[in-house]
Parts: sequence; structure tokens; C-alpha cells
Amino acid sequence: MNVQEEIFSILDQKEISKIKYEGAKIIIYVKNIELFKNGLELGKEIAMRIKKRIEIRVDPKLLDEDEKIKSKIHNILQNIKIKDVYIERHRSTVYIETYEPQSINIDLINIIRKETLCNVIIQRAPLRSSKIINVIRSYLHKNSLYKSEFLNNIGLKILEKKPEKLNYYRLIVLGAGREVGRSSFLLQTKESNILLDSGLGAGNYSEDKYPFINIPELDIQKLDAVIISHAHLDHVGFIPYLFRIGWRGPVYLTEPTRDIAALVLLDYLKVSNRQNKNALYTIRDIKEFLKHTITINYGEVTDIASDLKLTLHNANHILGASMVHLNIEGKHNLLYTGDYRFNPTKLLERPNTRFQRLETLLIESTYGGINDKHASREETESIFIHDIKETIEKGGKVLIPVLAVGRGQDVLLTLLDAIDNKLLPEIKIYIEGIVWETSMIHTAYPEFLSKEIRGKIETNMNPFERENVIRAIKKDRQEIISSKEPAIIIATSGMMQGGPILDYFYYAAGDERNLLAFVSYQAEGTLGRRILSGERQVMINNNKIDIKMKVNRYEGFSGHADRGETLAFIKYLKPRPKQALIIHGEEEKTRELSYSIYRKFNIQTYNPKIGDIIGLE
Amino acid sequence: MNVQEEIFSILDQKEISKIKYEGAKIIIYVKNIELFKNGLELGKEIAMRIKKRIEIRVDPKLLDEDEKIKSKIHNILQNIKIKDVYIERHRSTVYIETYEPQSINIDLINIIRKETLCNVIIQRAPLRSSKIINVIRSYLHKNSLYKSEFLNNIGLKILEKKPEKLNYYRLIVLGAGREVGRSSFLLQTKESNILLDSGLGAGNYSEDKYPFINIPELDIQKLDAVIISHAHLDHVGFIPYLFRIGWRGPVYLTEPTRDIAALVLLDYLKVSNRQNKNALYTIRDIKEFLKHTITINYGEVTDIASDLKLTLHNANHILGASMVHLNIEGKHNLLYTGDYRFNPTKLLERPNTRFQRLETLLIESTYGGINDKHASREETESIFIHDIKETIEKGGKVLIPVLAVGRGQDVLLTLLDAIDNKLLPEIKIYIEGIVWETSMIHTAYPEFLSKEIRGKIETNMNPFERENVIRAIKKDRQEIISSKEPAIIIATSGMMQGGPILDYFYYAAGDERNLLAFVSYQAEGTLGRRILSGERQVMINNNKIDIKMKVNRYEGFSGHADRGETLAFIKYLKPRPKQALIIHGEEEKTRELSYSIYRKFNIQTYNPKIGDIIGLE
Repeated sequence: MNVQEEIFSILDQKEISKIKYEGAKIIIYVKNIELFKNGLELGKEIAMRIKKRIEIRVDPKLLDEDEKIKSKIHNILQNIKIKDVYIERHRSTVYIETYEPQSINIDLINIIRKETLCNVIIQRAPLRSSKIINVIRSYLHKNSLYKSEFLNNIGLKILEKKPEKLNYYRLIVLGAGREVGRSSFLLQTKESNILLDSGLGAGNYSEDKYPFINIPELDIQKLDAVIISHAHLDHVGFIPYLFRIGWRGPVYLTEPTRDIAALVLLDYLKVSNRQNKNALYTIRDIKEFLKHTITINYGEVTDIASDLKLTLHNANHILGASMVHLNIEGKHNLLYTGDYRFNPTKLLERPNTRFQRLETLLIESTYGGINDKHASREETESIFIHDIKETIEKGGKVLIPVLAVGRGQDVLLTLLDAIDNKLLPEIKIYIEGIVWETSMIHTAYPEFLSKEIRGKIETNMNPFERENVIRAIKKDRQEIISSKEPAIIIATSGMMQGGPILDYFYYAAGDERNLLAFVSYQAEGTLGRRILSGERQVMINNNKIDIKMKVNRYEGFSGHADRGETLAFIKYLKPRPKQALIIHGEEEKTRELSYSIYRKFNIQTYNPKIGDIIGLE
Repeated sequence: MNVQEEIFSILDQKEISKIKYEGAKIIIYVKNIELFKNGLELGKEIAMRIKKRIEIRVDPKLLDEDEKIKSKIHNILQNIKIKDVYIERHRSTVYIETYEPQSINIDLINIIRKETLCNVIIQRAPLRSSKIINVIRSYLHKNSLYKSEFLNNIGLKILEKKPEKLNYYRLIVLGAGREVGRSSFLLQTKESNILLDSGLGAGNYSEDKYPFINIPELDIQKLDAVIISHAHLDHVGFIPYLFRIGWRGPVYLTEPTRDIAALVLLDYLKVSNRQNKNALYTIRDIKEFLKHTITINYGEVTDIASDLKLTLHNANHILGASMVHLNIEGKHNLLYTGDYRFNPTKLLERPNTRFQRLETLLIESTYGGINDKHASREETESIFIHDIKETIEKGGKVLIPVLAVGRGQDVLLTLLDAIDNKLLPEIKIYIEGIVWETSMIHTAYPEFLSKEIRGKIETNMNPFERENVIRAIKKDRQEIISSKEPAIIIATSGMMQGGPILDYFYYAAGDERNLLAFVSYQAEGTLGRRILSGERQVMINNNKIDIKMKVNRYEGFSGHADRGETLAFIKYLKPRPKQALIIHGEEEKTRELSYSIYRKFNIQTYNPKIGDIIGLE
């Protein structure tokens, strides 16, 4: 019995106008309004019987006109601050974008359902308007007809049992094997080909910044799905290229990862164009990527192929960052940590360590080396604030290079806390564009953040906004540095490979009162790494620059587990995996960690390199 | 300039009747007899210039009739014991099979060349006629026209630069990954696909006794060559299957490996038929295998593909067993140990440890576990002889299960030595068919043996023959055991999975005076292993047998390095490899050894499993 027959055996076929798929979810459009009104319970009942996720909606023909629906909603929610209402008629669905989602409780939603006959989706508006969120949300609404068809096809594909191409499961390392950067892993099961991340090389702009797509086992057109762990360029930067060459499959990720990825990818294009470098793809390809995203929440189990169930879990790295858990045929379970930190940070909670089943662990090792021990958060903060205070008192400027998302927000919160606690004077903090934008994105997704920050946002306090936090633009940069007033500048790119930080650095490098404060990982070959390693003369904008400013690093801010945290994470992992593959670390670190994990936990380990193919059993 | 043009630029085209390839060697057939007479020097000169191996022969049309050639040879060699003379006219080549090859010196060979105009190949006849060697040599002569064409095609293929299918080198584990048995590794270079060994599972007769040929990367029809390390069934047993399904490529191996392989494969067929098990292939496929063998000597560097040079080295495991050294494009060098022992044995010399270049080591680990320490040879022998003496004095029988080749000969030499030294009385030693045959094969290839044994054979002393060494046949077995006379029986199969040893065991097991003496590795799942592990009631010929005889093992006879020897071998390896892949060992042993080698030598190691694909870089 196929799914349709099963549904007809439960519901009268005459009451149903059509059955559609939205990915793994089955949507039953009904002609009978009463069926819809009882839809939430009825859906659960059918789901229990046919073991699929079910949603019941009315036939779109039964809906009122858009204006009437909107006015009904505004009436019902008259005391609640609404940003926008958007109706996708063909899906009988209404999106309500609001500043107070917590006030729209289940009773209100039920009233709206019954009054409008619409399926209701509540979206949180960021506390301050975010251009990128506006653009993405309206772009997705505009393309919802295409997306419905796409999701329907995906749903059909997931149900379909495909011929077996392989008689075991395996993982193919396309990137981040004995290196940091261009993370990309191809999971091949008997029926499916799934890409875990597809990033660009962090270090340099040569050929080897791309994943190893020339391996004969990879046929991009035959990829069933891509899963993105988080929105950093070294995990997501190569994805639009897949769309450029015509692939049109689903990309699974969290909603904030989708939004930040869009921002990061557009920024990559901008930087490439500014530097007259040929970008790998165009804005059109980024849009295609967005059109083909399927967002899921932490903990939500989703079928992504006939033999694969996906669950994303908090990775405590940046907003929306996920550990990826895949259950293959119910027989083998893989956990890919992506980038993660074990100790909680100001912004995020400690990651999950308990899983129903787990055989293979694919774990990052950025700081897995034998000498990699982060200072404690408290210690780091205290030295960081001390150094900044000293710099300010001398009349210097503090430059903090950050990736668009992650450390920037964390550092900003730390600075604001220090000001609140009178550890720093009320000085100006300049934030460059993309870091500002991502901060606003944070306020749209408080459920992905730490309890403390979540609480603030849900009571409409924007934790990233203050009078002294100023959004800087290009023409002010020289002035900010040459001004006598002390200042802190938070700007991209995080490894000084481009972005506004270079302008600030260009002006500030020669003054020994200034401080260049590294708060995140500097990959081999980057300008940041070179400076950190002691180079004191570098080329910026074709000019030779002598570095006289102070250079320090503060690793306690890191978004990565250090060696001790890595071992603690594995220790707390339940169940203990049978094999661990150590990736996303410099060669010696992956090797050292591989042997240490074996010795400590007596599980099989390996540090695969690019081109290695490792069986999962 | 291609090879032909290069040759024409050195030799007058008019003097040449044809140019042919015999694998990597170029054969120039000349019309001018003087050119041939100076051929040895001329060949070297041309080889120097075009960097290929060259041989000059006369146009076959210029040869005398066969009878005349033979009579000339018998005349020249009238004082030397000749077994046979065989002429391959189309190759202008004569094979002289003799019992005294050492007496046919270069001067005599030159006289034969000049008198007969033939290229001369001297073959050693075994000291006692070996049926299998006779059959193989005459079969190969009979098929020499086919083989010439085959070798010519191989030669053309080796010269040809093929399109690159891959942009790195890699090794695919098809067998012997975290297990002992069904050794098989697929080496993929940019242009070539080479199989290193292809054996059957040692342990059991289920599906997983075959190499993992279902991996999509293996296209048997596109294999460029197969290399065989040695003639044990778990390294060679699957090869005829390749011919059964139509593959017709070259198999590189030593000459004794070829002969023993034929014997072992025929025996496998016989045992399969006797047990009514479907053999994987027929005798026809074994013949095809023989037709496509290319034999090379230890130390001889041979092009086997446009991007691959092969050299075989003594592995000190059994007669003809090789370590396989492959130079890939001059850029990467792989050493596959096959099965080997580091300490010298009675039969064989210590293996080579110096190589021009070496990046990847593929090393066996049968006895690589943390507790694997063989007793010294002396100690083992002394206990072994003591136990046998005690058994004999009680009137018992000694059963020694051996593989067709290797331990059987070693043990026999040990027993004969003990008798010579009066440590044992002059008792009867029964040798079953195939062990006897392989002993005779040993006498045809003394240059592959230890100096001591080589010396004996070269002075026409057969080290395996004595009055008390008796070739046993089936109908005598029960009588041998039930007789009051003490006796030692050496018989196959080595792990008691079949063969005559089972008959002897059936009769002998119930008598506590008897001794079952294991001298070689017993794989998991075999009857030998079960008995060794303590089982005292087993099924033989559908009868339940209670084991009352003594059971002992004597590991000092092993053909495998123990853990200490393994580490010593790597220590002495020059140069030290960059990565070591640990294979051919039970899971825990491969893992333990992998980590130990890393700790001791600080080189990258891994214990790949079946289906893993490891890049070579």
C-alpha cells in the first residue's frame, strides 16, 4: 500500500482535494472545513498510523480573499505588534511576522486557523529591521510556487526506494582532511549521496581552496542533498557553485544558518569583485541556493532520503551552527560535529552529548593539538579588558578582526558587559556593516541562543544595541583611526584576508599605542596568521606597511573546543562511538588527537586526508 | 620520436626484419647474423640510448632445423647432464633444461649462440622429476605463440601514455583489512589499475572468503596487471576467477611462485570437488592464468605500465615469496611486504630492507599484537624435537598440519637435521603428495633459497630426500596410524580445513599418546584454530571425534614476523616511509600495531578495513 492508498483508507477520498509533499511532510488538502478545524488532532492520528509527518490544510479555493484574511488577523491580534502578514494561497498558509511571537499563544493560533482557514506560521521579526532577513523572506514568498513543486518532488523522491549503487556506507573526504578549511564530506549510502558542508579554503586563494570535486566518486548532478553545519565560508562557501553548474537538490540547514549564509556569500562576492578576483559564482546562484533550502530546527528528525534520517543539534559555535546526526537505514549512525565548542559561551549553550545511537564520530580538531589549551573564559576576558583599557588610556585604537558571525557578537557583548560593570569607560565601539547585520539576525532567532540572551530578546531588549555602538561606513575609517578619541573597531574579515579590517589596519599599524586583538582562529597562510607568527612588515593595498602596533591573541573567545574540551566532549558522549574520524585540523594536530583518542577511549580512530574514503561499519 | 624510430636512428632499417615486445623488453629481430653475434654488447648500447631493455635475435628464417640445433647443443654440452632442449622458433629462442646449470657458463652460452643463432635460456631441472614443473614448462612452450602475441600487446600498452582517470594515487583494500585472509589491494594511479594479490579467505567457506570485488571502483576487465606476492591460497586463490570472467591481462610473479601457485590452485580444485563444494573456477581458468604469467627475478626492475615500475624482493616467507616495490611515476614508492619474516630461517635469507625510495609501507601484522612474541628458533626446535622424541618413545604418532609450501619443508629439514645429530632416532617421516611435490619444486630454484640449502642443491644433493622420508598415499593412511611403528606425518591442509591431515587426525585423535603439532598460523574460524583454542570434540567426516591426543603449537617456525621483528624491520628500513598501512592481521592486532608504529617511529599509520580507500602522497 502506498502513502496515498493508506490515507484513503483513513479519510474519505471524496473529502480530499489533493495530497502534496513538502519534503518529508505530507500535506492533505481537504474540501471539508470541519476536517481542517480538527486538523491538528486528525493529522497526529493519521501520522501515528502511517508513520509519516502529516499536515491537514483546506483546499485553497475555500479561502477568503487576501485582504479579508489579513484584516481578520489584524483584528484578532490587535494588541500585538505585527510587522507583516504574508499569504501563500496555493499552500493555504499565512505567515505572520511579529515582534512578539511569544504573545501569540496556541489559543490565538487556533482562533486564526478557524477564522481564516489558513495554516499559520509565526515568524519573529528581528528587533531592528534586518535588510537581509527582509530580502530573504520576501524572496522566498515570491518563489513559493516554485518551492512547493520542488518540495513535492523531494517528498516523492524520499519515499522512493532506489536501486543500490553500493553495498556499504562510506565517507569521502573532499576537504578539511588534515587541514582547516574547505570542509566537505561526501556520504555514500547504498542508495544516496549526501554532501556534508562544502566550503572554501580558509588560507589562500589558489586552486586548493576548493573541495576535491575531481574525485571520480563525486557526481554533483546525482547528489541527493546537501547538509550545512553552519554559515562560515569554509563550510558553506562552495555551495552556490553547485547551483551554478545546474544542480537543483535540497540544502538542509537551520533558519539562521540560511540567513547568515546568504549574508556571508554575498559578502564573499563583494570582496571578490572589489579585489578583481573571479568569484566562483554570481548572485543568481546564491538565490538558487536560497530557493532550494529546507530549514529544520534543532532536534527535529527529518527523512532526507529513503535510507537517511537527519537531526541537527546545537553545536555551540555560532548562531544556528549544528552538529549533524545521520541515521543510515536504522543501522549506522554518524555524528558530524561541524565546528563546535564544549564549554558554554556568553552567546550559546553547551552542545548536546546524548544520542539515541552513534557508531561513527566525525570530529573537528582545530585546537586538538597537544599544546592547545584555551585560557579560561574569565581569564581571557580579564586580560582582554585590561589590554583594551591600557590601550585606551594611552589614546590608542583597538582593532578586532572577526568573521562576519560569531566572535564579533560575543566580543561585543563582553565589551558592553565590561562597560556596564565600569571596567571600561563608555567608549565608542565601531561595528562594520556585515557584523552589524548579523547581530540583527541574532535577534530574530533567540531560541538558538543562550538562555540569558534569549531572555533579553524575548523581552524586546536588543543586547547588541547601545548609544556608543556605532555602525561605521567606508568613508569614516581613516577619520576613526586618525581621531584623537579612543575607539574599538570590530570588523571583517576574521583572518585579515580582505574586508574593512584591512583599511583600519592600514591606517593603524604604524602607531605603537594601538592594539590588534585576535579573538579567533587564524588559518595557515592567512595575513592574520603571518602577523600572529611575528611578521612585522606586510603588503597592504600594494604598500609596504611596518607593524608597530601591539599584536595579541585571546583564545578564550574561541568558538572551537580545545584539546581538553574535545576529550571531555567524547567522554560525555552517550553512547560512545565505535570509530572517530579526526578532521578540520592541521596535520600534526589531527594525528596527535587521533592517537590520543584511541589511547584514552580505546576506540578506532583515523585522521583521513583529502581523497581518503572510509567505510562506516 | 617513438621507440621504432629511435631504433632505426641507431640500426640500419634494412638490417631489421621486425621489432617485437616481450612485456617491457624490446626484441629486435635482425637479418644480419653479425649483428646478432655482437648482440649482447649491441643490445646494451641501444638500451643505454633509448632507456629500454633490448634484446637482439636473428630472424627465425635464418635458423637451422630443430633437430640440427638440438644436435649442435648436445655436442657442445656433451659432458653436461641435459634433461631437455626446447626450441621456440618464432622467438629464435632455445630453452635448455639441465641438472647442472652452474656448469653452463657464459663462454658456453656464447658458443651455443654463435653456433645455433639462438637466444639461449638455461632452466634448472628439479633434482627429482617434478610433475607440475614438467606440465607447466611444456604447457608454456606449447602456448608460446599465443604468449608472444600477448607479450607484444603488453609491451605496446606499457609504452602508451593513457588518459588520466584519477588525479592522485590510491590504494583500495579489497581484502586482508583487519583480518587474515583474502589478501587483495587495488592500486589506482592516474593511468593504471593494478591488483596486488587476490586471495581466498583463510577462515571459512562463506561468502566473505572472496575479496570485495563489488566495490564500484573495481572494474576487473580494466585491470592493467596483477602482481602476486606469493603462492599461498589466501594471496593467489582468487586469481583464476579473473580469467574465468574473461580478463586477459598479465600476472607478474616469480617463477617458483608461478609453479607453486599452479600446484596450490589445482589442489584447491581437488579439495573442493572432493568436498562437493562449487569451486570458483575450473582447470581451464588455471591454465589461462599460467599462460598470462610474466615471471621476474628478485631485484629486476620492470616497467609494468607507463607510470609504474615493479621490483620484487625476497620476503623470507616461502619459496619465491616477494615483497612488492612499486615506483609510481617516479614520484611515489610503495612497498607491500606480502607475508614476510625478518629473522632468517633454515630455508630462506633475511629480507631486504634498503630501497632507493619509499613513501608508503603496506605491512602485514599476523603476529603484530602486543603479546605476539615467537620463541626463538633454537628454543622452538629444542622443544619441538623433545616433544616428538617423547611421543615416539611412548609409541605415538606425530601429526604436523602444514600449508602445501613453506613450513612443511622447513620442518622436514629440521627433523632431518635432528636425526643427523642423533637427537631423534631414524624414524619414518610420511609426506603427503602436495608437500612432496613442492619440496621437489624447491630443488629447481636454489637461487631463491638460503645459502646453505642453495649450496646443497647446486652440488646435486637433494636436502629433502632420505630413505626414511616416504611419500604417503591415501590408502596407507589408516595403516600408518594403526601400525605399532612410531611415525611423523606432514600433511595438508595447514589449518585443517580439509586435505589428508583430516584422515590422519580422524584415526589418531583418540589416542593420548599421539601429538598434533601446529607449526603455522591458524586463522579465526578454522578447525585448527578451534582445536588450538581448546575444543576437544569436533566433527570429522560427519562423525563426532573426541580429541585425546596432545595438542601443541610451535610458533618459532612461523613464516611471519612477530611484533619485535616487525618493529625491527621498520627500524632497519631505509629510507623510512612516510605512512604505514597495517593489514593482514586480526582487528585488534592491526590497531595496536598501527598505534605502536606511530609512537615508535612518528610516521602516519592506519589499519584500513575492507572498502577503505587510502590516498598515497
